[in-house]
Amino acid sequence: MSLHSEQSHQLPSSVTVLGLGPMGRALASAFLDGGLRTTVWNRTPGRDRELVERGAVSAPSAEEAVAVSELIVVCVVNYDAADAILRREAVTTALKGRTVVNLTADTPGRARDTATWAAEHGVRYLDGAIMTPATTIGTPAAVFIHSGPEELYREHRPVIEKLGGTHTHLGEDIGRAAAYDIALLDIFWTAMAGYAHALAVAKAEGVTAGELAPFAQGIAAILPPLFEEFAGDVDSGSYSGEINPITSAASSMAHIIHASEAHGIDAGVMRVVEGWARRVIARGHGTDGFVRVTELLGR
Amino acid sequence: MSLHSEQSHQLPSSVTVLGLGPMGRALASAFLDGGLRTTVWNRTPGRDRELVERGAVSAPSAEEAVAVSELIVVCVVNYDAADAILRREAVTTALKGRTVVNLTADTPGRARDTATWAAEHGVRYLDGAIMTPATTIGTPAAVFIHSGPEELYREHRPVIEKLGGTHTHLGEDIGRAAAYDIALLDIFWTAMAGYAHALAVAKAEGVTAGELAPFAQGIAAILPPLFEEFAGDVDSGSYSGEINPITSAASSMAHIIHASEAHGIDAGVMRVVEGWARRVIARGHGTDGFVRVTELLGR
Repeated sequence: MSLHSEQSHQLPSSVTVLGLGPMGRALASAFLDGGLRTTVWNRTPGRDRELVERGAVSAPSAEEAVAVSELIVVCVVNYDAADAILRREAVTTALKGRTVVNLTADTPGRARDTATWAAEHGVRYLDGAIMTPATTIGTPAAVFIHSGPEELYREHRPVIEKLGGTHTHLGEDIGRAAAYDIALLDIFWTAMAGYAHALAVAKAEGVTAGELAPFAQGIAAILPPLFEEFAGDVDSGSYSGEINPITSAASSMAHIIHASEAHGIDAGVMRVVEGWARRVIARGHGTDGFVRVTELLGR
Repeated sequence: MSLHSEQSHQLPSSVTVLGLGPMGRALASAFLDGGLRTTVWNRTPGRDRELVERGAVSAPSAEEAVAVSELIVVCVVNYDAADAILRREAVTTALKGRTVVNLTADTPGRARDTATWAAEHGVRYLDGAIMTPATTIGTPAAVFIHSGPEELYREHRPVIEKLGGTHTHLGEDIGRAAAYDIALLDIFWTAMAGYAHALAVAKAEGVTAGELAPFAQGIAAILPPLFEEFAGDVDSGSYSGEINPITSAASSMAHIIHASEAHGIDAGVMRVVEGWARRVIARGHGTDGFVRVTELLGR
Protein backbone atom coordinates (compact mmCIF):
# COMPACT_ATOMS: atom_id res chain seq x y z
CA MET A 1 0.00 0.00 0.00
CA SER A 2 1.44 3.38 -0.94
CA LEU A 3 1.41 6.22 1.52
CA HIS A 4 0.47 9.00 -0.86
CA SER A 5 -2.82 7.51 -2.02
CA GLU A 6 -4.00 7.51 1.61
CA GLN A 7 -2.74 10.89 2.70
CA SER A 8 -6.05 12.68 2.22
CA HIS A 9 -7.99 10.30 4.50
CA GLN A 10 -7.00 11.41 7.99
CA LEU A 11 -9.58 9.26 9.73
CA PRO A 12 -9.74 9.42 13.51
CA SER A 13 -9.17 5.67 13.43
CA SER A 14 -5.68 6.01 12.02
CA VAL A 15 -2.46 5.66 13.97
CA THR A 16 1.26 6.00 13.28
CA VAL A 17 3.90 3.86 14.93
CA LEU A 18 7.45 5.23 15.01
CA GLY A 19 10.08 2.60 15.85
CA LEU A 20 9.86 -0.98 14.62
CA GLY A 21 11.91 -2.99 17.04
CA PRO A 22 10.24 -6.17 18.35
CA MET A 23 7.96 -4.05 20.58
CA GLY A 24 7.10 -1.46 17.91
CA ARG A 25 6.27 -4.21 15.44
CA ALA A 26 4.03 -5.87 18.02
CA LEU A 27 2.21 -2.56 18.64
CA ALA A 28 1.70 -1.94 14.90
CA SER A 29 0.52 -5.51 14.47
CA ALA A 30 -2.07 -5.12 17.23
CA PHE A 31 -3.34 -1.87 15.68
CA LEU A 32 -3.72 -3.65 12.32
CA ASP A 33 -5.58 -6.50 14.04
CA GLY A 34 -7.79 -3.83 15.59
CA GLY A 35 -8.79 -2.58 12.13
CA LEU A 36 -6.92 0.71 12.34
CA ARG A 37 -5.26 2.40 9.39
CA THR A 38 -1.68 1.96 10.58
CA THR A 39 1.29 3.91 9.25
CA VAL A 40 4.75 2.75 10.24
CA TRP A 41 8.26 4.15 10.09
CA ASN A 42 11.65 3.02 11.37
CA ARG A 43 15.02 4.76 11.26
CA THR A 44 16.59 1.68 9.66
CA PRO A 45 14.46 0.64 6.67
CA GLY A 46 13.28 -2.91 5.95
CA ARG A 47 11.71 -3.65 9.31
CA ASP A 48 8.17 -3.09 8.01
CA ARG A 49 7.90 -5.82 5.36
CA GLU A 50 5.54 -8.17 7.22
CA LEU A 51 3.46 -5.25 8.50
CA VAL A 52 3.05 -3.82 4.97
CA GLU A 53 2.03 -7.27 3.69
CA ARG A 54 -0.69 -7.17 6.34
CA GLY A 55 -1.92 -3.73 5.22
CA ALA A 56 0.28 -1.21 7.04
CA VAL A 57 1.33 1.94 5.23
CA SER A 58 5.10 2.36 5.02
CA ALA A 59 6.09 6.02 5.34
CA PRO A 60 9.29 7.16 3.61
CA SER A 61 10.15 9.64 6.38
CA ALA A 62 9.24 10.34 9.98
CA GLU A 63 7.61 13.66 9.05
CA GLU A 64 5.40 11.97 6.47
CA ALA A 65 4.55 9.18 8.95
CA VAL A 66 3.52 11.80 11.50
CA ALA A 67 1.49 13.88 9.04
CA VAL A 68 -1.09 11.19 8.28
CA SER A 69 -2.36 10.36 11.81
CA GLU A 70 -3.84 12.25 14.72
CA LEU A 71 -2.19 9.80 17.11
CA ILE A 72 1.50 8.95 16.94
CA VAL A 73 2.83 6.10 19.09
CA VAL A 74 6.58 6.17 19.68
CA CYS A 75 8.48 3.10 20.85
CA VAL A 76 12.24 3.29 20.46
CA VAL A 77 15.21 2.28 22.62
CA ASN A 78 15.29 5.40 24.85
CA TYR A 79 14.50 9.13 24.89
CA ASP A 80 17.75 10.04 23.16
CA ALA A 81 16.48 8.01 20.20
CA ALA A 82 12.97 9.48 20.55
CA ASP A 83 14.34 13.03 20.67
CA ALA A 84 16.48 12.42 17.57
CA ILE A 85 13.25 11.64 15.70
CA LEU A 86 10.70 14.02 17.24
CA ARG A 87 12.88 17.11 17.67
CA ARG A 88 13.99 17.36 14.05
CA GLU A 89 12.35 20.56 12.77
CA ALA A 90 10.38 18.94 9.95
CA VAL A 91 8.92 16.36 12.36
CA THR A 92 8.20 18.87 15.13
CA THR A 93 6.35 21.04 12.60
CA ALA A 94 4.33 18.08 11.34
CA LEU A 95 3.47 17.09 14.95
CA LYS A 96 1.79 20.41 15.78
CA GLY A 97 -1.75 19.78 17.07
CA ARG A 98 -1.29 16.02 17.01
CA THR A 99 -0.97 13.66 19.97
CA VAL A 100 2.19 11.72 20.79
CA VAL A 101 1.94 8.67 23.07
CA ASN A 102 5.51 7.88 24.01
CA LEU A 103 5.82 4.23 25.06
CA THR A 104 9.61 4.46 25.05
CA ALA A 105 11.19 3.48 28.38
CA ASP A 106 13.37 6.01 30.18
CA THR A 107 13.43 8.01 33.39
CA PRO A 108 10.66 10.23 34.83
CA GLY A 109 12.94 13.25 34.30
CA ARG A 110 13.16 12.57 30.58
CA ALA A 111 9.38 12.20 30.34
CA ARG A 112 8.90 15.56 32.06
CA ASP A 113 11.49 17.19 29.82
CA THR A 114 9.71 15.87 26.73
CA ALA A 115 6.37 17.15 28.02
CA THR A 116 7.90 20.63 28.37
CA TRP A 117 9.25 20.47 24.83
CA ALA A 118 5.87 19.22 23.55
CA ALA A 119 3.99 22.09 25.24
CA GLU A 120 6.41 24.60 23.72
CA HIS A 121 5.74 23.21 20.24
CA GLY A 122 1.99 22.71 20.38
CA VAL A 123 2.29 18.93 20.55
CA ARG A 124 -0.22 17.09 22.73
CA TYR A 125 1.68 14.58 24.85
CA LEU A 126 1.03 11.39 26.83
CA ASP A 127 3.68 9.18 28.36
CA GLY A 128 3.35 5.47 28.92
CA ALA A 129 5.20 2.27 29.63
CA ILE A 130 4.72 -1.34 28.65
CA MET A 131 5.23 -3.74 31.57
CA THR A 132 5.08 -7.05 29.67
CA PRO A 133 7.09 -8.61 26.80
CA ALA A 134 6.36 -7.92 23.12
CA THR A 135 4.77 -11.37 22.83
CA THR A 136 1.91 -10.26 25.12
CA ILE A 137 0.89 -7.25 22.99
CA GLY A 138 -2.60 -7.71 21.55
CA THR A 139 -3.40 -10.33 24.20
CA PRO A 140 -5.11 -10.02 27.60
CA ALA A 141 -1.71 -10.53 29.26
CA ALA A 142 -0.37 -7.14 28.14
CA VAL A 143 0.01 -4.48 30.84
CA PHE A 144 0.27 -0.79 29.95
CA ILE A 145 0.53 2.22 32.25
CA HIS A 146 -0.09 5.79 31.15
CA SER A 147 0.28 9.29 32.56
CA GLY A 148 -0.47 12.82 31.42
CA PRO A 149 -3.62 14.90 30.86
CA GLU A 150 -6.61 12.70 31.65
CA GLU A 151 -8.82 14.30 29.02
CA LEU A 152 -6.23 13.60 26.33
CA TYR A 153 -5.90 10.02 27.55
CA ARG A 154 -9.69 9.54 27.41
CA GLU A 155 -9.82 10.95 23.89
CA HIS A 156 -7.32 8.41 22.55
CA ARG A 157 -8.23 5.53 24.79
CA PRO A 158 -10.34 3.71 22.16
CA VAL A 159 -7.30 3.54 19.86
CA ILE A 160 -4.81 2.78 22.67
CA GLU A 161 -6.97 -0.08 23.91
CA LYS A 162 -6.63 -1.80 20.54
CA LEU A 163 -3.23 -2.87 21.93
CA GLY A 164 -5.01 -5.35 24.19
CA GLY A 165 -4.40 -6.13 27.86
CA THR A 166 -5.00 -3.76 30.74
CA HIS A 167 -4.41 -0.01 30.58
CA THR A 168 -4.13 2.09 33.72
CA HIS A 169 -4.02 5.88 33.73
CA LEU A 170 -1.85 6.68 36.75
CA GLY A 171 -2.44 10.42 36.94
CA GLU A 172 -1.80 13.77 35.35
CA ASP A 173 1.87 13.98 36.40
CA ILE A 174 3.56 13.08 33.11
CA GLY A 175 6.49 11.40 34.92
CA ARG A 176 4.30 8.92 36.76
CA ALA A 177 4.29 6.11 34.20
CA ALA A 178 8.09 6.29 33.93
CA ALA A 179 8.35 6.31 37.74
CA TYR A 180 6.29 3.11 38.00
CA ASP A 181 8.23 1.65 35.08
CA ILE A 182 11.60 2.34 36.71
CA ALA A 183 10.45 0.95 40.07
CA LEU A 184 9.00 -2.20 38.50
CA LEU A 185 12.04 -2.77 36.30
CA ASP A 186 14.14 -2.32 39.43
CA ILE A 187 12.26 -5.18 41.09
CA PHE A 188 12.39 -7.31 37.96
CA TRP A 189 16.09 -6.94 37.12
CA THR A 190 17.21 -7.18 40.71
CA ALA A 191 15.22 -10.40 41.14
CA MET A 192 16.60 -11.78 37.88
CA ALA A 193 20.12 -10.91 39.03
CA GLY A 194 19.48 -12.80 42.26
CA TYR A 195 18.28 -15.78 40.28
CA ALA A 196 21.24 -15.71 37.84
CA HIS A 197 23.60 -15.47 40.83
CA ALA A 198 21.85 -18.27 42.70
CA LEU A 199 22.12 -20.51 39.64
CA ALA A 200 25.88 -19.85 39.55
CA VAL A 201 26.24 -20.71 43.26
CA ALA A 202 24.07 -23.80 42.86
CA LYS A 203 26.11 -24.96 39.86
CA ALA A 204 29.35 -24.55 41.82
CA GLU A 205 27.76 -26.80 44.46
CA GLY A 206 26.82 -29.44 41.87
CA VAL A 207 23.14 -28.49 41.75
CA THR A 208 21.80 -27.99 38.21
CA ALA A 209 19.53 -25.11 37.25
CA GLY A 210 16.79 -27.62 36.47
CA GLU A 211 17.07 -29.07 39.98
CA LEU A 212 16.92 -25.66 41.63
CA ALA A 213 14.19 -24.18 39.41
CA PRO A 214 11.11 -25.76 41.08
CA PHE A 215 12.27 -24.51 44.49
CA ALA A 216 13.13 -21.10 42.99
CA GLN A 217 9.59 -20.94 41.64
CA GLY A 218 8.36 -21.68 45.16
CA ILE A 219 10.35 -18.68 46.42
CA ALA A 220 8.85 -16.45 43.70
CA ALA A 221 5.39 -17.63 44.72
CA ILE A 222 5.79 -16.36 48.31
CA LEU A 223 6.75 -12.85 47.14
CA PRO A 224 3.31 -11.36 46.25
CA PRO A 225 1.78 -11.57 49.75
CA LEU A 226 5.06 -10.33 51.27
CA PHE A 227 5.10 -7.41 48.81
CA GLU A 228 1.64 -6.42 49.98
CA GLU A 229 2.53 -6.75 53.67
CA PHE A 230 5.76 -4.75 53.31
CA ALA A 231 4.02 -2.01 51.33
CA GLY A 232 1.76 -1.57 54.35
CA ASP A 233 4.83 -1.36 56.61
CA VAL A 234 6.44 1.31 54.42
CA ASP A 235 3.31 3.44 54.13
CA SER A 236 2.61 3.22 57.87
CA GLY A 237 6.27 3.60 58.89
CA SER A 238 6.06 0.58 61.21
CA TYR A 239 8.41 -2.20 60.22
CA SER A 240 7.53 -5.32 62.14
CA GLY A 241 10.43 -7.75 62.40
CA GLU A 242 8.69 -10.13 64.75
CA ILE A 243 8.72 -13.08 62.35
CA ASN A 244 11.96 -12.23 60.59
CA PRO A 245 14.11 -9.48 62.13
CA ILE A 246 16.71 -7.77 59.98
CA THR A 247 19.48 -9.22 62.18
CA SER A 248 18.40 -12.67 61.00
CA ALA A 249 18.28 -11.47 57.38
CA ALA A 250 21.81 -10.07 57.74
CA SER A 251 22.97 -13.43 59.06
CA SER A 252 21.52 -15.19 55.97
CA MET A 253 23.20 -12.60 53.75
CA ALA A 254 26.57 -13.27 55.37
CA HIS A 255 26.13 -16.99 54.63
CA ILE A 256 25.31 -16.23 50.99
CA ILE A 257 28.37 -13.99 50.62
CA HIS A 258 30.62 -16.55 52.28
CA ALA A 259 29.32 -19.48 50.22
CA SER A 260 29.60 -17.48 46.96
CA GLU A 261 33.08 -16.17 47.54
CA ALA A 262 34.28 -19.61 48.67
CA HIS A 263 33.66 -20.59 45.03
CA GLY A 264 35.20 -17.39 43.63
CA ILE A 265 31.75 -16.10 42.66
CA ASP A 266 31.30 -12.32 42.88
CA ALA A 267 28.95 -11.51 45.78
CA GLY A 268 28.90 -7.79 45.04
CA VAL A 269 25.13 -7.50 45.00
CA MET A 270 24.68 -9.25 48.34
CA ARG A 271 27.56 -7.24 49.82
CA VAL A 272 25.66 -4.04 49.02
CA VAL A 273 22.41 -5.47 50.42
CA GLU A 274 24.11 -6.70 53.59
CA GLY A 275 25.65 -3.24 53.96
CA TRP A 276 22.16 -1.71 53.89
CA ALA A 277 20.97 -4.20 56.51
CA ARG A 278 24.00 -3.55 58.76
CA ARG A 279 23.38 0.20 58.57
CA VAL A 280 19.75 -0.28 59.64
CA ILE A 281 20.96 -2.44 62.55
CA ALA A 282 23.66 0.11 63.48
CA ARG A 283 20.96 2.78 63.71
CA GLY A 284 19.27 0.71 66.41
CA HIS A 285 16.57 -0.98 64.32
CA GLY A 286 17.83 -4.57 64.49
CA THR A 287 14.47 -5.93 65.61
CA ASP A 288 12.68 -4.32 62.66
CA GLY A 289 11.97 -6.15 59.43
CA PHE A 290 14.29 -5.92 56.42
CA VAL A 291 11.97 -3.55 54.56
CA ARG A 292 13.10 -0.77 56.89
CA VAL A 293 15.95 -0.53 54.36
CA THR A 294 13.51 1.49 52.23
CA GLU A 295 13.59 4.27 54.81
CA LEU A 296 17.39 4.19 54.98
CA LEU A 297 17.68 4.48 51.19
CA GLY A 298 15.13 7.25 50.96
CA ARG A 299 16.80 9.62 53.42
CA MET B 1 6.42 -32.91 83.38
CA SER B 2 9.72 -33.84 85.00
CA LEU B 3 12.54 -35.13 82.89
CA HIS B 4 13.84 -37.80 85.22
CA SER B 5 10.65 -39.80 85.53
CA GLU B 6 10.69 -40.25 81.72
CA GLN B 7 14.35 -41.02 81.25
CA SER B 8 13.92 -44.77 81.18
CA HIS B 9 11.34 -44.68 78.36
CA GLN B 10 13.45 -44.08 75.28
CA LEU B 11 10.57 -44.69 72.90
CA PRO B 12 11.33 -44.47 69.19
CA SER B 13 8.56 -41.88 69.07
CA SER B 14 10.51 -39.40 71.14
CA VAL B 15 12.38 -36.41 69.89
CA THR B 16 14.57 -33.65 71.33
CA VAL B 17 14.62 -30.10 70.04
CA LEU B 18 17.71 -27.99 70.80
CA GLY B 19 17.19 -24.28 70.26
CA LEU B 20 13.93 -22.52 71.08
CA GLY B 21 13.91 -19.44 68.93
CA PRO B 22 10.66 -18.82 67.00
CA MET B 23 11.54 -21.63 64.57
CA GLY B 24 12.66 -24.11 67.25
CA ARG B 25 9.49 -23.47 69.23
CA ALA B 26 7.40 -24.03 66.10
CA LEU B 27 9.20 -27.34 65.47
CA ALA B 28 8.70 -28.53 69.06
CA SER B 29 5.07 -27.47 68.91
CA ALA B 30 4.48 -29.50 65.74
CA PHE B 31 6.13 -32.56 67.32
CA LEU B 32 3.83 -32.19 70.33
CA ASP B 33 0.82 -31.89 68.02
CA GLY B 34 2.05 -35.04 66.33
CA GLY B 35 1.85 -36.93 69.60
CA LEU B 36 5.60 -37.31 70.10
CA ARG B 37 7.32 -37.28 73.46
CA THR B 38 9.16 -33.99 72.98
CA THR B 39 12.12 -32.85 75.05
CA VAL B 40 13.29 -29.28 74.68
CA TRP B 41 16.33 -27.25 75.66
CA ASN B 42 17.55 -23.74 75.00
CA ARG B 43 20.81 -22.02 75.96
CA THR B 44 18.86 -19.15 77.49
CA PRO B 45 16.23 -20.60 79.89
CA GLY B 46 12.56 -19.58 80.01
CA ARG B 47 11.75 -20.06 76.34
CA ASP B 48 10.00 -23.39 76.97
CA ARG B 49 7.13 -22.34 79.23
CA GLU B 50 4.30 -22.68 76.72
CA LEU B 51 5.75 -25.90 75.33
CA VAL B 52 6.00 -27.44 78.83
CA GLU B 53 2.40 -26.44 79.52
CA ARG B 54 1.49 -28.41 76.42
CA GLY B 55 3.40 -31.49 77.58
CA ALA B 56 7.00 -30.96 76.51
CA VAL B 57 9.77 -32.12 78.80
CA SER B 58 12.15 -29.34 79.79
CA ALA B 59 15.72 -30.64 80.03
CA PRO B 60 18.06 -28.89 82.48
CA SER B 61 21.09 -29.31 80.19
CA ALA B 62 21.87 -30.04 76.55
CA GLU B 63 23.48 -33.38 77.46
CA GLU B 64 20.37 -34.47 79.37
CA ALA B 65 18.14 -33.28 76.52
CA VAL B 66 20.18 -35.34 74.08
CA ALA B 67 20.28 -38.45 76.28
CA VAL B 68 16.50 -39.07 76.25
CA SER B 69 15.83 -39.26 72.49
CA GLU B 70 17.10 -41.21 69.53
CA LEU B 71 16.50 -38.21 67.29
CA ILE B 72 17.81 -34.75 68.08
CA VAL B 73 16.66 -31.80 65.99
CA VAL B 74 18.89 -28.74 66.17
CA CYS B 75 17.69 -25.31 65.12
CA VAL B 76 19.86 -22.41 66.25
CA VAL B 77 21.10 -19.19 64.65
CA ASN B 78 24.10 -20.66 62.79
CA TYR B 79 26.69 -23.46 62.96
CA ASP B 80 28.88 -21.53 65.38
CA ALA B 81 25.97 -21.72 67.82
CA ALA B 82 25.28 -25.37 66.91
CA ASP B 83 28.95 -26.30 67.41
CA ALA B 84 29.02 -24.56 70.79
CA ILE B 85 26.26 -26.93 71.89
CA LEU B 86 27.07 -30.20 70.12
CA ARG B 87 30.86 -30.17 70.45
CA ARG B 88 30.96 -29.80 74.21
CA GLU B 89 32.41 -33.10 75.42
CA ALA B 90 29.46 -34.07 77.63
CA VAL B 91 27.03 -33.51 74.76
CA THR B 92 29.21 -35.24 72.14
CA THR B 93 29.45 -38.26 74.46
CA ALA B 94 25.69 -38.32 74.99
CA LEU B 95 25.10 -38.06 71.22
CA LYS B 96 27.05 -41.24 70.40
CA GLY B 97 24.84 -43.61 68.37
CA ARG B 98 22.04 -41.07 68.14
CA THR B 99 20.86 -39.13 65.12
CA VAL B 100 21.20 -35.36 64.75
CA VAL B 101 19.02 -33.57 62.20
CA ASN B 102 20.54 -30.12 61.89
CA LEU B 103 17.95 -27.66 60.59
CA THR B 104 20.22 -24.71 61.37
CA ALA B 105 20.94 -22.49 58.34
CA ASP B 106 24.55 -22.00 57.28
CA THR B 107 26.84 -22.74 54.34
CA PRO B 108 27.38 -26.13 52.60
CA GLY B 109 30.98 -26.08 53.86
CA ARG B 110 29.83 -25.92 57.48
CA ALA B 111 27.39 -28.79 56.91
CA ARG B 112 30.20 -30.94 55.48
CA ASP B 113 32.51 -30.01 58.34
CA THR B 114 29.87 -31.02 60.87
CA ALA B 115 29.31 -34.33 59.06
CA THR B 116 33.04 -35.06 59.35
CA TRP B 117 32.96 -34.26 63.06
CA ALA B 118 29.87 -36.41 63.51
CA ALA B 119 31.47 -39.39 61.75
CA GLU B 120 34.54 -39.08 63.98
CA HIS B 121 32.37 -39.18 67.09
CA GLY B 122 29.91 -41.92 66.15
CA VAL B 123 27.06 -39.47 65.70
CA ARG B 124 24.58 -40.19 62.89
CA TYR B 125 24.02 -36.99 60.97
CA LEU B 126 21.45 -35.47 58.61
CA ASP B 127 21.42 -31.89 57.44
CA GLY B 128 18.34 -29.94 56.46
CA ALA B 129 16.90 -26.53 55.82
CA ILE B 130 13.51 -24.93 56.34
CA MET B 131 12.44 -22.83 53.37
CA THR B 132 9.29 -21.25 54.85
CA PRO B 133 8.58 -19.02 57.88
CA ALA B 134 8.03 -20.42 61.38
CA THR B 135 4.30 -19.75 61.03
CA THR B 136 4.06 -22.46 58.34
CA ILE B 137 5.51 -25.24 60.51
CA GLY B 138 2.92 -27.95 61.17
CA THR B 139 0.88 -26.80 58.16
CA PRO B 140 0.85 -28.00 54.53
CA ALA B 141 2.65 -24.78 53.54
CA ALA B 142 5.92 -25.77 55.23
CA VAL B 143 8.81 -26.72 52.93
CA PHE B 144 11.77 -28.75 54.22
CA ILE B 145 14.79 -30.00 52.32
CA HIS B 146 17.13 -32.69 53.62
CA SER B 147 20.44 -34.24 52.67
CA GLY B 148 22.70 -37.00 53.97
CA PRO B 149 22.52 -40.83 54.10
CA GLU B 150 19.25 -41.89 52.53
CA GLU B 151 18.81 -44.89 54.80
CA LEU B 152 19.16 -42.70 57.87
CA TYR B 153 16.66 -40.23 56.40
CA ARG B 154 14.17 -43.02 55.74
CA GLU B 155 14.54 -44.34 59.28
CA HIS B 156 13.59 -41.00 60.84
CA ARG B 157 11.19 -39.82 58.18
CA PRO B 158 8.03 -40.74 60.14
CA VAL B 159 9.13 -38.44 62.98
CA ILE B 160 10.43 -35.70 60.67
CA GLU B 161 7.17 -35.64 58.74
CA LYS B 162 5.29 -34.75 61.92
CA LEU B 163 6.58 -31.23 61.15
CA GLY B 164 4.02 -31.00 58.33
CA GLY B 165 4.44 -29.67 54.81
CA THR B 166 6.60 -31.21 52.12
CA HIS B 167 9.92 -32.92 52.76
CA THR B 168 12.41 -33.56 49.94
CA HIS B 169 15.55 -35.64 50.34
CA LEU B 170 17.97 -34.02 47.90
CA GLY B 171 20.72 -36.61 47.97
CA GLU B 172 23.47 -38.22 50.00
CA ASP B 173 25.86 -35.24 49.72
CA ILE B 174 25.43 -33.72 53.16
CA GLY B 175 26.04 -30.17 51.82
CA ARG B 176 23.19 -30.33 49.35
CA ALA B 177 20.40 -28.99 51.57
CA ALA B 178 22.58 -26.04 52.59
CA ALA B 179 23.49 -25.43 48.93
CA TYR B 180 19.82 -25.24 47.96
CA ASP B 181 19.13 -23.13 51.04
CA ILE B 182 21.86 -20.62 50.18
CA ALA B 183 20.77 -20.40 46.54
CA LEU B 184 17.11 -19.93 47.47
CA LEU B 185 17.89 -17.36 50.16
CA ASP B 186 20.04 -15.60 47.57
CA ILE B 187 17.00 -15.30 45.29
CA PHE B 188 14.73 -14.27 48.15
CA TRP B 189 16.91 -11.60 49.74
CA THR B 190 18.05 -10.17 46.41
CA ALA B 191 14.42 -9.88 45.27
CA MET B 192 13.43 -8.30 48.59
CA ALA B 193 16.31 -5.83 48.25
CA GLY B 194 15.05 -4.94 44.77
CA TYR B 195 11.59 -4.37 46.18
CA ALA B 196 12.79 -2.27 49.13
CA HIS B 197 14.89 -0.19 46.72
CA ALA B 198 12.02 0.20 44.25
CA LEU B 199 9.75 1.40 47.07
CA ALA B 200 12.34 4.06 47.96
CA VAL B 201 12.58 5.22 44.32
CA ALA B 202 8.79 5.21 43.96
CA LYS B 203 8.40 7.23 47.17
CA ALA B 204 10.90 9.82 45.93
CA GLU B 205 8.72 10.10 42.80
CA GLY B 206 5.57 10.59 44.88
CA VAL B 207 4.27 7.05 44.38
CA THR B 208 3.24 5.32 47.62
CA ALA B 209 4.13 1.71 48.41
CA GLY B 210 0.45 0.84 48.38
CA GLU B 211 0.09 2.27 44.87
CA LEU B 212 3.10 0.36 43.56
CA ALA B 213 2.36 -2.93 45.34
CA PRO B 214 -0.31 -4.34 42.95
CA PHE B 215 2.03 -3.78 40.00
CA ALA B 216 4.96 -5.21 41.97
CA GLN B 217 2.86 -8.30 42.62
CA GLY B 218 2.31 -8.52 38.86
CA ILE B 219 6.08 -8.51 38.34
CA ALA B 220 6.51 -11.29 40.93
CA ALA B 221 3.84 -13.31 39.12
CA ILE B 222 5.81 -13.34 35.85
CA LEU B 223 8.94 -14.72 37.53
CA PRO B 224 8.08 -18.45 37.88
CA PRO B 225 7.74 -19.20 34.13
CA LEU B 226 10.86 -17.11 33.43
CA PHE B 227 12.75 -19.02 36.14
CA GLU B 228 11.88 -22.27 34.41
CA GLU B 229 12.82 -20.98 30.96
CA PHE B 230 16.15 -19.56 32.13
CA ALA B 231 17.03 -22.75 33.99
CA GLY B 232 16.74 -24.54 30.65
CA ASP B 233 19.05 -21.94 29.07
CA VAL B 234 21.67 -22.40 31.80
CA ASP B 235 21.59 -26.20 31.70
CA SER B 236 21.79 -26.24 27.88
CA GLY B 237 24.32 -23.39 27.64
CA SER B 238 22.20 -21.60 25.02
CA TYR B 239 21.03 -18.19 26.18
CA SER B 240 18.41 -16.89 23.80
CA GLY B 241 18.11 -13.12 23.86
CA GLU B 242 15.66 -12.92 20.99
CA ILE B 243 12.82 -11.45 23.06
CA ASN B 244 14.96 -9.49 25.48
CA PRO B 245 18.68 -9.17 24.67
CA ILE B 246 21.09 -8.28 27.48
CA THR B 247 21.87 -4.96 25.71
CA SER B 248 18.24 -3.96 26.28
CA ALA B 249 18.44 -5.12 29.92
CA ALA B 250 21.60 -3.04 30.42
CA SER B 251 19.78 -0.02 29.01
CA SER B 252 16.94 -0.50 31.56
CA MET B 253 19.53 -0.86 34.33
CA ALA B 254 21.17 2.44 33.31
CA HIS B 255 17.76 4.14 33.59
CA ILE B 256 17.22 2.67 37.05
CA ILE B 257 20.65 3.82 38.24
CA HIS B 258 20.13 7.30 36.79
CA ALA B 259 16.64 7.72 38.25
CA SER B 260 17.78 6.47 41.68
CA GLU B 261 20.88 8.59 41.92
CA ALA B 262 18.97 11.67 40.71
CA HIS B 263 17.12 11.34 44.05
CA GLY B 264 20.30 10.61 46.02
CA ILE B 265 19.24 6.96 46.44
CA ASP B 266 22.09 4.44 46.52
CA ALA B 267 22.01 2.37 43.33
CA GLY B 268 24.87 0.11 44.41
CA VAL B 269 23.00 -3.13 43.75
CA MET B 270 22.00 -2.14 40.22
CA ARG B 271 25.51 -0.82 39.54
CA VAL B 272 26.90 -4.28 40.28
CA VAL B 273 24.21 -5.95 38.14
CA GLU B 274 24.78 -3.52 35.25
CA GLY B 275 28.51 -4.24 35.53
CA TRP B 276 27.80 -7.96 35.09
CA ALA B 277 25.64 -7.23 32.04
CA ARG B 278 28.29 -4.93 30.51
CA ARG B 279 30.95 -7.61 30.96
CA VAL B 280 28.77 -10.16 29.16
CA ILE B 281 28.25 -7.64 26.34
CA ALA B 282 31.98 -6.81 26.20
CA ARG B 283 32.70 -10.53 25.73
CA GLY B 284 30.63 -10.42 22.55
CA HIS B 285 27.36 -11.85 23.90
CA GLY B 286 25.18 -8.74 23.61
CA THR B 287 22.45 -10.57 21.71
CA ASP B 288 22.18 -13.26 24.41
CA GLY B 289 19.67 -13.11 27.24
CA PHE B 290 20.55 -11.67 30.66
CA VAL B 291 20.81 -15.10 32.27
CA ARG B 292 24.17 -15.56 30.49
CA VAL B 293 25.43 -13.63 33.54
CA THR B 294 25.28 -17.00 35.34
CA GLU B 295 28.11 -18.27 33.12
CA LEU B 296 30.15 -15.12 33.69
CA LEU B 297 29.79 -15.44 37.48
CA GLY B 298 30.62 -19.13 37.47
CA ARG B 299 33.94 -18.86 35.67
